[in-house]
Amino acid sequence: MQLKRTWTAAVLIIGDEILSGRTRDENVAPIAIWLNEQGIRLAEVRMVADALDVISKAVNELRRSHDYLITTGGIGPTHDDITVDGVAAAFETVVEIIPEARAILERFFRDVPGGLSEAHLRLARAPSGAEVIQSPTSPAIGFRLDNVFILAGVPRIAASMLENLSGKLLGGRPLVSVTVSARVRETEVAQLLRDTEEAHPGAIIGSYPFFKQGNHGCNFVIRCEDQDVAEGTGKDLINRLRLEGFDPIEGGS
Amino acid sequence: MQLKRTWTAAVLIIGDEILSGRTRDENVAPIAIWLNEQGIRLAEVRMVADALDVISKAVNELRRSHDYLITTGGIGPTHDDITVDGVAAAFETVVEIIPEARAILERFFRDVPGGLSEAHLRLARAPSGAEVIQSPTSPAIGFRLDNVFILAGVPRIAASMLENLSGKLLGGRPLVSVTVSARVRETEVAQLLRDTEEAHPGAIIGSYPFFKQGNHGCNFVIRCEDQDVAEGTGKDLINRLRLEGFDPIEGGS
Repeated sequence: MQLKRTWTAAVLIIGDEILSGRTRDENVAPIAIWLNEQGIRLAEVRMVADALDVISKAVNELRRSHDYLITTGGIGPTHDDITVDGVAAAFETVVEIIPEARAILERFFRDVPGGLSEAHLRLARAPSGAEVIQSPTSPAIGFRLDNVFILAGVPRIAASMLENLSGKLLGGRPLVSVTVSARVRETEVAQLLRDTEEAHPGAIIGSYPFFKQGNHGCNFVIRCEDQDVAEGTGKDLINRLRLEGFDPIEGGS
Repeated sequence: MQLKRTWTAAVLIIGDEILSGRTRDENVAPIAIWLNEQGIRLAEVRMVADALDVISKAVNELRRSHDYLITTGGIGPTHDDITVDGVAAAFETVVEIIPEARAILERFFRDVPGGLSEAHLRLARAPSGAEVIQSPTSPAIGFRLDNVFILAGVPRIAASMLENLSGKLLGGRPLVSVTVSARVRETEVAQLLRDTEEAHPGAIIGSYPFFKQGNHGCNFVIRCEDQDVAEGTGKDLINRLRLEGFDPIEGGS
């Protein structure tokens, strides 16, 4: 039997505005879903401040412990945008104007009054050797250096940069998920869930209670690399819940 | 001059549902704001899976590098709720039924048909020596062990547990923030912002562009421990923006 390889990624969210509570992160969930489509598991997220040493330490820890690291935030033209400096420090390399990035900006600002300013040119700064990741919707430029992907913080721009990377990263199989829901309380089915998970090696069952329209209920999410195992576990879970007198349905509630 | 002490905290979000993208975290921002009210800075957030070794490693790193660690998630009655086990492993101690927690559950389930079940009793499990953090709205029970605070994942319950801790943690001064906004692009004012920040030691200026009703604009957020410095920096920034021909207002847009 061939050894199965699980590909993992970490996400590093950079920005004081996240840690102050002013801005709610909206990048983790779409990046997680995109990664799974590429056959890569999001294994860890960190959120750190706009501080050079903090960024470079997190970059080094995460790029070494995962196959990929995606950063968001801190790539604009102002003094508080220091992500590329943090990544460069992590790689012990210098920051320079990347010619391909400069060319993109020159095209973008060719017809803009005032043209390309010194401040705009900061958007072309990246660690030496970085490759450009373009956004079709914005002059913001992302960069890839080794296994580190530097994306914008604005969710719409980050998503467009990710789209440009679709299908280009090595990965394994996506996790398939099957959801079963029922009007039960978790405590009523705790043992049943444990038994079901144990009966289906490879399948993981998560239990997520909700309270909706005056009713308690739970979503049970089965996650597995194998579609057949995921579906079989879902059917078995539905049967077991019925035997206990509950009325489960396939699909989330 | 007395040395100023900055108190910091980390937040650890535990749950496969966050890393799969199924659930968006809603705890970071309110915890960040609550911490600031206590005079404590949120310095780092991590999100990890429901895996014992991963949780215990993160708990040890974060509780040692910050004054406080707040965890959310993984404290329910089902097999995938293993936060207390992870924290116990980090402290190299055992998990036991905490008598005070058991008493709370016995009171809560006294008049419930079926009474206190084995599954309910799992809610009273915590690392040996942990103190109870009650939620007024739920039988869910949080725990404190040393500088680690174990809260629920459901935002409304986590918030009610935090409320019980208000004013009880040692902290310093909250950060004051002053927001100035203007219809400018970041690139037009990058140097002006840098100069303003340099002229006001202690004040940090964050720049957050937005695009609203067809107009580009920026919010400039000044953060500082000293109210007078924050307000003085805000006034200076408004003056500098006016001198350049922009029309700034105090307050966010």
